[in-house]
Amino acid sequence: MPLTESFKVIDADVHNEQDDAALVPYLPEPWRSRVAKSGIGMAGSGYYSPVGVMKKDAIPPGGGKAGSDPDLMVKQLVERYDLEYAILTGVIYNISATHDPDFAAAICSAYNDFLIAEWLGKHRAFKGAMAVSTLDPVLAAREIDRIGGHPDIVEVIISSAARSPLGHRYYHPIYEAAERNGLPVAIHPGAEGAGSSTAPTSVGYPARYIEWHTNLSQTFMAHLVSIVTEGVFVKYPGLRLVLVEGGIAWLPPLMWRLDKNYKALRSTVPWLTKMPSEYIRDHCFLTTQPIEEPDNPQHLIDLFNMFDAENIILYSSDYPHWDFDAPDMILRRLKPEARRKIFYENAKKLYNL
Amino acid sequence: MPLTESFKVIDADVHNEQDDAALVPYLPEPWRSRVAKSGIGMAGSGYYSPVGVMKKDAIPPGGGKAGSDPDLMVKQLVERYDLEYAILTGVIYNISATHDPDFAAAICSAYNDFLIAEWLGKHRAFKGAMAVSTLDPVLAAREIDRIGGHPDIVEVIISSAARSPLGHRYYHPIYEAAERNGLPVAIHPGAEGAGSSTAPTSVGYPARYIEWHTNLSQTFMAHLVSIVTEGVFVKYPGLRLVLVEGGIAWLPPLMWRLDKNYKALRSTVPWLTKMPSEYIRDHCFLTTQPIEEPDNPQHLIDLFNMFDAENIILYSSDYPHWDFDAPDMILRRLKPEARRKIFYENAKKLYNL
Repeated sequence: MPLTESFKVIDADVHNEQDDAALVPYLPEPWRSRVAKSGIGMAGSGYYSPVGVMKKDAIPPGGGKAGSDPDLMVKQLVERYDLEYAILTGVIYNISATHDPDFAAAICSAYNDFLIAEWLGKHRAFKGAMAVSTLDPVLAAREIDRIGGHPDIVEVIISSAARSPLGHRYYHPIYEAAERNGLPVAIHPGAEGAGSSTAPTSVGYPARYIEWHTNLSQTFMAHLVSIVTEGVFVKYPGLRLVLVEGGIAWLPPLMWRLDKNYKALRSTVPWLTKMPSEYIRDHCFLTTQPIEEPDNPQHLIDLFNMFDAENIILYSSDYPHWDFDAPDMILRRLKPEARRKIFYENAKKLYNL
Repeated sequence: MPLTESFKVIDADVHNEQDDAALVPYLPEPWRSRVAKSGIGMAGSGYYSPVGVMKKDAIPPGGGKAGSDPDLMVKQLVERYDLEYAILTGVIYNISATHDPDFAAAICSAYNDFLIAEWLGKHRAFKGAMAVSTLDPVLAAREIDRIGGHPDIVEVIISSAARSPLGHRYYHPIYEAAERNGLPVAIHPGAEGAGSSTAPTSVGYPARYIEWHTNLSQTFMAHLVSIVTEGVFVKYPGLRLVLVEGGIAWLPPLMWRLDKNYKALRSTVPWLTKMPSEYIRDHCFLTTQPIEEPDNPQHLIDLFNMFDAENIILYSSDYPHWDFDAPDMILRRLKPEARRKIFYENAKKLYNL
């Protein structure tokens, strides 16, 4: 594997999973009895993937969910691809698509305690993204202050499925607490269109998973436009944002359109002191998986060269999901220096590893 | 003006406007009395543009709306830029964001009769996009059959502000009638988030016009994904679609993402017999205004070269809107052959002029 011969790899999106029952010991009442009896009860969007959501070979031989066995993950991912670090992102952020803010906060706290107790110490490569719910950003900020100082917690993760654009002031306590704790905030898709979240496109509900999945990038565009124009990075200058699993190639066209509009409409966002695209370059990172794959692979490289791609992109595998990208399979045409940054150095610096 | 020295120009998006009272003579009762008394009552999205929506110099000296005076339009647009044809798109398609399907259909019919009587004969350059409402696609199809054969009607125009993705079968009578009448269907933004339409982004309501306007492209992405995956172009192989005023540069990344997903998920859309991007190349056109403007203008040209841009892009000015693009101001770096297609030949062929 030529990529991993020359430098180590940091994987910015690895999904550890667990049965609902695993969180029961970490929950207080009344939530403990509820989950023990009925499970968490995640909201579902109803979109069906015929290829499944999980890599079949990631299911532990002894049973359980794909991604639930630390030893198998070490073998299949960490050791096989010589990862220096794997950022464990979980899936519990999807709780933001349910309805009760106290329940969602309790589930996140239980998950964070579970993550620290049952994953982070198990291998030197494991680093954790702590989950918070956006259903009550004040409770989320409190959780970030409770857990954010743990040496193996390197990120706060929230769901892109939300009730309103993530730049709105309602969410700012999350960004304030993340900045205070020196943690980047990651945004991850998965529950678009489920439960209390908005429809998964700006024109309502598409018919199929292929549409739902293709359109996920647009949710990231709308959140990013909101976060930048609302001045989140002006208000929290130390904040860094990671857009996980939302695609990459859409970014240059969006920056062009937003910058052009800013030139005409800057009077409505007077707190911005530089071009919107500069805030994106200075504060945002995007993960690679699922990477766009043009027929001509050079097109993606040419597009990368139109913006500061090599400094703001982080490699991610999305293990153990169906569209897993192995580090030796993507971005092979990039120059070695750019590959080194994307597969290792950008994440090492961002996560202070 | 170097561009217009070598070839004529066809402008695919010119907004004629009129006071509500102008439609009253063309309306039957009970709508005639309603509009005479209270106006049409378009739904408003509430987003405010500090630069206004209209070019100030396009307001007729004697008063009235910008774009309401055919003679001024001839002078400011047709003669000044040596247009061979101007496709009059109006603004009445925004009626689809109101609520009553019968009222919306009556307003469109009145507008279409007004357009034919008071615009299309006034100058050899004027060609018309007939408007239909998406609130009742069966009524819309009937209107297309009533008016679509007029020699100066070259297009059917609908609003991108809708209740659901425009590929849904509910809308198919519109596409069927347009194909039957040999007319392309244009989709135009303007009422996103107003009245009966969905929120203007996939994450709800952004705070400002700069966000609303930047995010309009995403509505086109979601509609296009829906139309292609639902098999509209398989069902109506003669149909051509024109995405007006939604931007262009987002198209290659969207095609890459959609094609990649299709490879894994094609079993859910078995009616497609070729790659999604091929349907787009074979059936879709995009208009230029508002064109993306990267700091390095070569980036846009490089992006154009990643897809079949010169064969599927149509020049548009968006006269008389604030962000009007004169034909001699944009895409100057394109090769002459590509410019000739975009500014003239593609539209001439599409509209059978």
